[in-house]
Amino acid sequence: MRNRFLNFKKLFVFAVLFSSALVFAQENKPATWIWYPGDFEIWLSNKMQVRRTEREAVFPPLWQYYSPYALVTFQTEVDIPKPDEVKIYSEGPFQLLLDGVQVYGQPKSITVPAGKHKISFKVYNQEVLPAIYISGQYVKSNASWQVTNEDKLWIDENGKAQQSGTPWVPVGSWNFDSAENKPSEFKLTTKPLSAKKTEKIGAGQLVDFGKETFGYIKIHGLKGKGKVALYYGESREEALDSARCETLDHLSFDGKQPEIYTHNGSKAFRYVQVQADAGVKYDSISMLYEYLPLDYRGAFKSSDQELNKIWDVSAYTMHLTSREFFIDGIKRDRWVWSGDAYQSYLMNYYLFFDSASVERTLLALRGKDPVTAHVNIIMDYSLYWFVGVYDYYLHTGDTKFIKTFYPRMKSLMDFCLERRNKNGFLEPLEGDWVFIDWANGLPKTGEVSFEQMLLARSLEAMAVSAEIAGKNEDQKQYQKLASDLKTKLFDVFWDKKENVMKHQRIDGKMQDIVTRYANMFGIFFNYFDEEQKQSIKNKVLLNKDVLQITTPYMRFYELEALCAIGEQDYVLKEMKDYWGGMLKEGATSFWEEYNPNKKGKEHLEMYGRPYGKSLCHAWGSSPIYLLGKYYLGVKPTAPGYAEYEIKPNLGGQQWMEGKVPTPNGEVALYVSKSEIKVKASEGEGKLVFESAGKPKASSGTITELAKNKYQLIVKPNVEYKVSYKAI
Amino acid sequence: MRNRFLNFKKLFVFAVLFSSALVFAQENKPATWIWYPGDFEIWLSNKMQVRRTEREAVFPPLWQYYSPYALVTFQTEVDIPKPDEVKIYSEGPFQLLLDGVQVYGQPKSITVPAGKHKISFKVYNQEVLPAIYISGQYVKSNASWQVTNEDKLWIDENGKAQQSGTPWVPVGSWNFDSAENKPSEFKLTTKPLSAKKTEKIGAGQLVDFGKETFGYIKIHGLKGKGKVALYYGESREEALDSARCETLDHLSFDGKQPEIYTHNGSKAFRYVQVQADAGVKYDSISMLYEYLPLDYRGAFKSSDQELNKIWDVSAYTMHLTSREFFIDGIKRDRWVWSGDAYQSYLMNYYLFFDSASVERTLLALRGKDPVTAHVNIIMDYSLYWFVGVYDYYLHTGDTKFIKTFYPRMKSLMDFCLERRNKNGFLEPLEGDWVFIDWANGLPKTGEVSFEQMLLARSLEAMAVSAEIAGKNEDQKQYQKLASDLKTKLFDVFWDKKENVMKHQRIDGKMQDIVTRYANMFGIFFNYFDEEQKQSIKNKVLLNKDVLQITTPYMRFYELEALCAIGEQDYVLKEMKDYWGGMLKEGATSFWEEYNPNKKGKEHLEMYGRPYGKSLCHAWGSSPIYLLGKYYLGVKPTAPGYAEYEIKPNLGGQQWMEGKVPTPNGEVALYVSKSEIKVKASEGEGKLVFESAGKPKASSGTITELAKNKYQLIVKPNVEYKVSYKAI
Repeated sequence: MRNRFLNFKKLFVFAVLFSSALVFAQENKPATWIWYPGDFEIWLSNKMQVRRTEREAVFPPLWQYYSPYALVTFQTEVDIPKPDEVKIYSEGPFQLLLDGVQVYGQPKSITVPAGKHKISFKVYNQEVLPAIYISGQYVKSNASWQVTNEDKLWIDENGKAQQSGTPWVPVGSWNFDSAENKPSEFKLTTKPLSAKKTEKIGAGQLVDFGKETFGYIKIHGLKGKGKVALYYGESREEALDSARCETLDHLSFDGKQPEIYTHNGSKAFRYVQVQADAGVKYDSISMLYEYLPLDYRGAFKSSDQELNKIWDVSAYTMHLTSREFFIDGIKRDRWVWSGDAYQSYLMNYYLFFDSASVERTLLALRGKDPVTAHVNIIMDYSLYWFVGVYDYYLHTGDTKFIKTFYPRMKSLMDFCLERRNKNGFLEPLEGDWVFIDWANGLPKTGEVSFEQMLLARSLEAMAVSAEIAGKNEDQKQYQKLASDLKTKLFDVFWDKKENVMKHQRIDGKMQDIVTRYANMFGIFFNYFDEEQKQSIKNKVLLNKDVLQITTPYMRFYELEALCAIGEQDYVLKEMKDYWGGMLKEGATSFWEEYNPNKKGKEHLEMYGRPYGKSLCHAWGSSPIYLLGKYYLGVKPTAPGYAEYEIKPNLGGQQWMEGKVPTPNGEVALYVSKSEIKVKASEGEGKLVFESAGKPKASSGTITELAKNKYQLIVKPNVEYKVSYKAI
Repeated sequence: MRNRFLNFKKLFVFAVLFSSALVFAQENKPATWIWYPGDFEIWLSNKMQVRRTEREAVFPPLWQYYSPYALVTFQTEVDIPKPDEVKIYSEGPFQLLLDGVQVYGQPKSITVPAGKHKISFKVYNQEVLPAIYISGQYVKSNASWQVTNEDKLWIDENGKAQQSGTPWVPVGSWNFDSAENKPSEFKLTTKPLSAKKTEKIGAGQLVDFGKETFGYIKIHGLKGKGKVALYYGESREEALDSARCETLDHLSFDGKQPEIYTHNGSKAFRYVQVQADAGVKYDSISMLYEYLPLDYRGAFKSSDQELNKIWDVSAYTMHLTSREFFIDGIKRDRWVWSGDAYQSYLMNYYLFFDSASVERTLLALRGKDPVTAHVNIIMDYSLYWFVGVYDYYLHTGDTKFIKTFYPRMKSLMDFCLERRNKNGFLEPLEGDWVFIDWANGLPKTGEVSFEQMLLARSLEAMAVSAEIAGKNEDQKQYQKLASDLKTKLFDVFWDKKENVMKHQRIDGKMQDIVTRYANMFGIFFNYFDEEQKQSIKNKVLLNKDVLQITTPYMRFYELEALCAIGEQDYVLKEMKDYWGGMLKEGATSFWEEYNPNKKGKEHLEMYGRPYGKSLCHAWGSSPIYLLGKYYLGVKPTAPGYAEYEIKPNLGGQQWMEGKVPTPNGEVALYVSKSEIKVKASEGEGKLVFESAGKPKASSGTITELAKNKYQLIVKPNVEYKVSYKAI
């Protein structure tokens, strides 16, 4: 992430060009269902997040649900060469105006005459969300339409239409590209999956699907009358513990059911204990695996088999938690948490590069106005949200998201800024949860340096976004707020004697505590100079006496910080120890928390419950990100990979190869100690590497940057082979 | 309304006592369905307002729809003498916590042990609105419960629940007092009504229901296959004009329909033209009349038969438009408009005194936050809303409404205040509609004195409300804003030479226009001194050269102003001319607009459409209010009729009698030129009257206030007979 906030001006020009190209491309796309931007995401996330159950009780989130607008007006202007017979599909009754004149009834189609026309649909739907699909040869609903939630179109006493001050915004859309494929009927994809093993347990059986999975239990050859209980387990222990497992279902059959029964509630599990009444018989248990269809556009393979396994299980963990949205865990919470999602965005850029999932998740998290609490009620989670928006722009080059949702960025930032104390620092007020990490004994009250650092970074993100949104006054204001806060952060929290960042100040009294959090973030935010970084590395990051991190969540940043200062060899060992440690415990997906000091069933406990821990948690997947960004070494340096860097680092491996996805392609790489092969689809890359001897390239010109340090410019669609001698 | 903002302090004490009495009373009530306050009203108004159709096209409002919260947590604390078996009914899946511990599943009942307990239900419903009905012997859902849309209850890593900053508010409820009677299934009452007359029209027939009505057409003895067209008309002309009537239905029958068909769409009409295909036969047409069941608690009868008829038709017009909410008209717009509703509130206090309807309407109009436009996008309509809240408090004495919704009052006022120009005046910005009245040539741009006067009154209402809500700083601020604005209003708009209020200033230039609006409002707002009032009466109100008023809407205030300065004789004649004029044109309900100079079908035209005018418009019912308040002369002088005034004025009639409802009773009155009889159920009344000779009372003591002016204190449940000699 180094420097990513610096060279903005140049990139902005690029982004503007890039986005107008996008608009052009949309004109040739088929019709698609459209809605008020963000509303589908709000509706779907409301629906999805309440699917968490705890022993058959629903367990909805603790934060506010926003709602879609129940009444919206879609509008477009067309200029067509011939009359167009246009089919109309609507979720909800509509009022259609053609050139401002009401068309009576609820027509299923309309002929739009040749020439210039203004078409508008006011659609009402209070149960789901208003959406339309308009399909003619020329006139079709797509991302170029506009929408408003208050059209303010009134008729005066003489019958003349009056309208002003209507807040039009670009519509939202996704991939609902046929009339039948309605947003309100959205479902993830499913496919049948067989059990790997079954085992008799009392009068019932334990079904093992071989690895962590997600979906709907199917019962085959079902006959008879009576009850069937299903006890789910991410672990064998959990499925067997019918009294304490976290999820279960009690089914009841009257004898008239079909022979194949599919449960309508999705669950996360590897094991299912099935206990049926004597009156009920069945042949076998299978499942419908439910997933979001995504391409694994990123790849990684190396000479280290354990590392390869870590990457594979990370990718699977990531896929299981990349669903309607990037959720935290598939058993629990099945919710969208901003801090967790922030990591998923980053991993996504190195695995699926699925922009739509990032947008959906950002929108679900942000909701609407008014802002009455932090995102997920957590102070740090509001702040990650801003940085997530910036990262989205950096990786995708898409300015439309920021332009459309800048007002929501601003109102969330207003909320945050209003909660600063008299010193200009964020300090928790009533209702604010300071999370940082699950870590026993971690102090979270008063002014915590970590939160201020995230706020500074968020303000920088706001400054960039304000410029994209064309709000120059805002840009200046946010830039100044960011720079003032950074100055204050160092004035107050930087310990000049110890050369480390302190953790906390309470009522003006600096607390004698150093933690990893602000220290590691400051490294990859590039807030420290080289001397400071070295001091932090030795006194904090590599110091076992500083409060240890036990969640993959914060290990993500800890290892990123170490990678950012070139400690790839050390980090590789840490990854193998930590994630390898989970694999040795039998993990088939990565966990919410892992403490190597725990034993056996202790690993399953959390939140005071024997199976409270989530064994498939998105934040467990960070090796995807670390290996892609700091070993393959690929990262964008201009929005949308217009420019990027490749800085491979074997970190002690013999060789590695892999792919890092870019918006419209990939960077493919093979690296051994003597050879680097690279081919990219787009943008201009800088391959930077060290070599003991003078390297040779099959194409392009190698420049010497410093002693033993070389650079090769990578152009699209050219395969480069570099012979070199690794140091 | 005179002085109603003045003696607040004393009344406030009363209101506090009164409202705690209410809470006590609720404990003995049965269980009732509860929801987030205001959400049922928002949901229902969204649903209702989209029922307007124009020739089978839906015609939704032009303003923003807000939404109910899809996820809310209900909570209560109980202390019960015995274990209680409590039944649970919920609209939407719920999570139940008993003393903070989750109860598994979705239980239909739960046993709450004796003693103190905290019970909470988190309910999700995105399709309709979350609501619960909880019914035990001791534990039951009622107005004493609390609710929040963000409970912020989270579980830390040790399983400990944490909660702070939760915005609890009192729940909303109405009259859903049984488990089966769910809010989501709310429907108005219906009863069968026969046609009065039928007449052959071509191959079909014209059905006449004898007067304006509302509901669902029924077809009896229906047989055969084919189409039936229904053309509705508030007038005979409209029903006969199938090509241009405003509402119609095309029905299609396949021969398998039942013999009695009831249409599922409600319409407003007196006449229906029925045209059926030859293949379709039926015996007769009737209707299901749909209405809100309300008691006519107010009454009026006098020696003037025409006036009695005016009162009756006003009451019927008012009842037809008092539905889910107070709407403007039953054919058109079927919407909730704040300016129209404001008058309905006032009429309601003299007819139904149905507090629930006022609350529902205020809540539907206000919606939620953020405020992004004026109520109904009309500047004056935001302002009427505040005054409507104050009037509600004055008439009902209910402080709970203000306490609960004060934040929504404040955010709407913030919106209004932010839209002031540099002079501190409201001037329309983009998207603001200045309505004032339908009147050709009425200037509405720049600074209009009428809008500033309404703002001043609204600020006074806010000051009173702030005090009730316990926001003393706000109270001071609003009081100062109001008084500053009033000063400025007179400095700028009062013409000291002409002694009238000018209408408009544009870019600092006073326009040479005088209109009735600010001048008449200033009278009953008591913003003018006696000399100013007399000048306005002669130079404006009784001056035919000042732009005439042609809507009953503004006639309401014009006549009120004249009554407020004692011109009852004149106003009585005006009422007979104007409303009597409509009766002579055959009106069976009062109209949106009436211009005595128009002839025949011209009366039906409006908005450039031949039948565009609404012939049953709530604002046509003002005689109810004028006769109750200024002839029977009854009005509250302290909140909830704790104190009130009776100042009868025959206005030229021989005698009159009537009832004015109060929160828990009525003031019944008979007045002739020689006798006044009065009996009241509650509060302390001051009967004030003039008599040429010394009056005598059957009870109580008559005080002489001035020459020929007397007062008698009226205590509850005592019948007073006063002999006097009218002057």
